[in-house]
Amino acid sequence: MSYEFAERGSTEEVEEGRALAPKFDADGLVTCVTTDATTGGVLMVAHMNAEALARTIESGEAWYYSRSRRRLWRKGESSGHVQRVTEMRVDCDQDAVWIKVEQEGPGACHTGRRSCFYRAVPLGTAPSRSLVLELREGEKAFDPHAVYGAETK
Amino acid sequence: MSYEFAERGSTEEVEEGRALAPKFDADGLVTCVTTDATTGGVLMVAHMNAEALARTIESGEAWYYSRSRRRLWRKGESSGHVQRVTEMRVDCDQDAVWIKVEQEGPGACHTGRRSCFYRAVPLGTAPSRSLVLELREGEKAFDPHAVYGAETK
Repeated sequence: MSYEFAERGSTEEVEEGRALAPKFDADGLVTCVTTDATTGGVLMVAHMNAEALARTIESGEAWYYSRSRRRLWRKGESSGHVQRVTEMRVDCDQDAVWIKVEQEGPGACHTGRRSCFYRAVPLGTAPSRSLVLELREGEKAFDPHAVYGAETK
Repeated sequence: MSYEFAERGSTEEVEEGRALAPKFDADGLVTCVTTDATTGGVLMVAHMNAEALARTIESGEAWYYSRSRRRLWRKGESSGHVQRVTEMRVDCDQDAVWIKVEQEGPGACHTGRRSCFYRAVPLGTAPSRSLVLELREGEKAFDPHAVYGAETK
């Protein structure tokens, strides 16, 4: 596919302008926050390289770049749990995007949950080894082994 | 302050366990997504080092690590726009946290907006230099120069 982003200009241009000039990090990635268009909850945090970002914009389906597998990754390519993007936003310095998605299937997380954020951290005390995370919506919505097989994430 | 996190164990332990064992990257950081506890919208994406994470957990106020300024940063220390954390979650592989906050003052973004994500990316066409971002809630909620002075972010 053919695509092009704008050059990074001055801070003023990047923050106040209307051109999409992403700030890819040393690994060529921007951070992507993915929220559920229905509930508003955060489903996952992942990364996009230039091609994943371009494909997401063009197709309206979420594409990411897997750092562990070092390859482009269409969300749902293994699981069928595709994400249809209803809106994409970019942040002030353009090193992060936020997509709101309609999540196909029972969940976004490779562990079988709807969201990757199924554990809460208790607040009010400095963290120690005795800190115990609390489950939130931690029930598995699907069996990851049945959906992904040997592959995970 | 004194704090301690758990050692990183097996994938099973990290994903299914109840211990907080953050995966800090090569720069010693985890990604933090900050949402508005009232509206559910994403206010900002930032980073926390171990101390920022520990201080946030202990105090219930958001602390970050500024990569540009290379220092610990209590949100609101310049602007007074403190963030009170109502809930913190950690993701499956524990390299990202999600905090829901009550945002003190008019906004979280150093440009003067409530959220850093005030521009939408039009979908359906491969990105080109003619792509034009669309303003969303892009009105400035405060004057950043008056609040931050010469300092930004």
